[in-house]
Amino acid sequence: MDSAEHCQRIGHALTQVKNTRPLVHHITNYVTANDSANTVLALGGSPVMADAPIEVEYMTARANALVLNLGTCRPETVTAMTLAGKIANQKHIPIVLDPVGIGATPFRYESALKLIEELDIHVIRGNMSEIKLLAGLETKNHGVDSADDDPDGAKIAMTLANKYRTIVAITGKTDVISDGGTICLLDHGHKYLTQITGAGCMTTSLIGCYLGANKDFFLATTAGILTMGLAGEKAAARMTPHDGMGSFKVYLMDAIYHMTPEILKKKGKIQYVFSNE
Amino acid sequence: MDSAEHCQRIGHALTQVKNTRPLVHHITNYVTANDSANTVLALGGSPVMADAPIEVEYMTARANALVLNLGTCRPETVTAMTLAGKIANQKHIPIVLDPVGIGATPFRYESALKLIEELDIHVIRGNMSEIKLLAGLETKNHGVDSADDDPDGAKIAMTLANKYRTIVAITGKTDVISDGGTICLLDHGHKYLTQITGAGCMTTSLIGCYLGANKDFFLATTAGILTMGLAGEKAAARMTPHDGMGSFKVYLMDAIYHMTPEILKKKGKIQYVFSNE
Amino acid sequence: MDSAEHCQRIGHALTQVKNTRPLVHHITNYVTANDSANTVLALGGSPVMADAPIEVEYMTARANALVLNLGTCRPETVTAMTLAGKIANQKHIPIVLDPVGIGATPFRYESALKLIEELDIHVIRGNMSEIKLLAGLETKNHGVDSADDDPDGAKIAMTLANKYRTIVAITGKTDVISDGGTICLLDHGHKYLTQITGAGCMTTSLIGCYLGANKDFFLATTAGILTMGLAGEKAAARMTPHDGMGSFKVYLMDAIYHMTPEILKKKGKIQYVFSNE
Repeated sequence: MDSAEHCQRIGHALTQVKNTRPLVHHITNYVTANDSANTVLALGGSPVMADAPIEVEYMTARANALVLNLGTCRPETVTAMTLAGKIANQKHIPIVLDPVGIGATPFRYESALKLIEELDIHVIRGNMSEIKLLAGLETKNHGVDSADDDPDGAKIAMTLANKYRTIVAITGKTDVISDGGTICLLDHGHKYLTQITGAGCMTTSLIGCYLGANKDFFLATTAGILTMGLAGEKAAARMTPHDGMGSFKVYLMDAIYHMTPEILKKKGKIQYVFSNE
Repeated sequence: MDSAEHCQRIGHALTQVKNTRPLVHHITNYVTANDSANTVLALGGSPVMADAPIEVEYMTARANALVLNLGTCRPETVTAMTLAGKIANQKHIPIVLDPVGIGATPFRYESALKLIEELDIHVIRGNMSEIKLLAGLETKNHGVDSADDDPDGAKIAMTLANKYRTIVAITGKTDVISDGGTICLLDHGHKYLTQITGAGCMTTSLIGCYLGANKDFFLATTAGILTMGLAGEKAAARMTPHDGMGSFKVYLMDAIYHMTPEILKKKGKIQYVFSNE
Repeated sequence: MDSAEHCQRIGHALTQVKNTRPLVHHITNYVTANDSANTVLALGGSPVMADAPIEVEYMTARANALVLNLGTCRPETVTAMTLAGKIANQKHIPIVLDPVGIGATPFRYESALKLIEELDIHVIRGNMSEIKLLAGLETKNHGVDSADDDPDGAKIAMTLANKYRTIVAITGKTDVISDGGTICLLDHGHKYLTQITGAGCMTTSLIGCYLGANKDFFLATTAGILTMGLAGEKAAARMTPHDGMGSFKVYLMDAIYHMTPEILKKKGKIQYVFSNE
């Protein structure tokens, strides 16, 4: 599959989101929950947030996708994630995991491992530091941001994808996505995305939204990342001299709202480094 | 009372908000708490958020109105709501309940019923799905959004209002408000309001703000809903081709800030379907 | 030290933030957490939010500064603050405390006192009501906003600073900062800052960011307050007739992002009322 064909399929995946309006259940952090919800709505999905163990199974059972985001998590949150994830697995509802800040504390790292081991997770999206940690590699991490820009991203993503039989996405200057066989590289996006909080969380929510409307999870993952990358470029292009990150975030949400299959097809570039296909 | 007179009174209700700056205590969700706080400030009130059972009674005792919003609630949150609500009842502080997503989980549904039974709730504002559920009717609900647009809204609102001796507001394409006798219909608003998260929560907070400054709770409820409807229209009218939901939300907050008694009087239209007056 | 020299040093403090990108750990409320995170990023720091007692010590140990904000706190949050604060003290990581709404409930007031007594807090930033309460003076407080504008601010700040051997900052129409000897007064800012939620929290986060990159904590405190004041002025100057508080908040974040040592030096005015130097 070449880039044009892939981006055309991604365009179709967006149409599926608009047509089916997937319900995306989030168990996520309170810092970026509002951004995640608005991102899902802007793309055409329907977000729902709930994290009490007493109710997450019911919420997940109705959903088309489940987003598990470890930001500001508590032990009870991990309990809720496990309950929700098991229902999701029973009902074949896809799960995307965002291992926010797992390099910062043992609790987050162990929670991520526990979730990966106990659940069938379909996609893991993180920055280079987070993914390297899950792959058992050393990293120089800095809080919840990635200070790591490893040139071996493709190899790392593939290793982790094979280890856990999942799709792995590393977002950064170059985004890397692998299902253990195929590897895609994307060079879209803008450095401004690193200067607002929540770009990573929003990308994960976009992936969740695509997962909820499409059966090809690898396609859905690339779709979420390409959407954020192109939206970031469009938002950055709209900036005037007085505009800063307040305006950028508004423009970003605008650009996600105005994303179309045509833009994805016309502007998207995806590079295949290696493929077993 | 005709539409012009009603809207003039609503204008006066806004003046009361600006003059008295009501303190509106929220026990609400972390997804839209920031939006609710900014909405109350934009209208001229003073918001406060607190949800720990250890302190909510003190916070409510100082407040002019209490907003109970079931989004992202936990068992402890419901405990806090009950404690706060009882103090509010003792001190004759009006309460507005937003039964967010009660169709999605038994916990939310039962929590809403418990609050309605144990407390004297002055206003319930929800979408059609949520209100139908409280009225004991079947609905096709979809997460926390309403996929239901029942033509019998007026009847449903009146039934529920009489059942619980409260004011019921159903917001949607047409908004319906009933106190069990009078019914008001409003056709203001814009579909964009359904494409951002929190428009419902913000409307409930506006109602809370008007309740805190006015003794006529039915008027306060229509005032909150009319304010959001007209602000939504004004925000939508300001949209340029590149603007999306990021900009819309900014314009919406701007429009609430610039709402005046004159705009409410000049632009507001309220239809009386039936009245016992 | 005169105003020009002080502002030049503040400019240098900003350069230090940009160069060292301090990691600022927040234990804060869910209403304004997103705003605080974006504020720190806009200035050039790296924010992290975590409040589970199980992990806060690890997060703090990696941080360059710790922000403790009492908004929406729960008993468990105070436990987390104590744990994080003790690690911060051991590792000589500066702490700034924001006693949000301590006049509203005994729980918040007692929690603030407990933190001040058990920890070595380097900066306390609050509004006049909050600071007067900590200083043992009477106040007419109104929820979490300050309805108090005491002309004795300088004396109050100095008294409290000496009582707890900390730096005290009272923000309001005139900002007052004292370390118990020197007193600085700032007249920057705009009334719009009182019409959005979170300006106080954002100011505290800016102080945290400067603290994390500079060893002179008094300078860092004035730097945070001057930055917010000048950004507020710049944002207000950008307002067009249709703009309201939605736009103001966007412009405010833009202005923080575009803050430079030159602006701080050229526009900043700091008055020394009294100094023991």
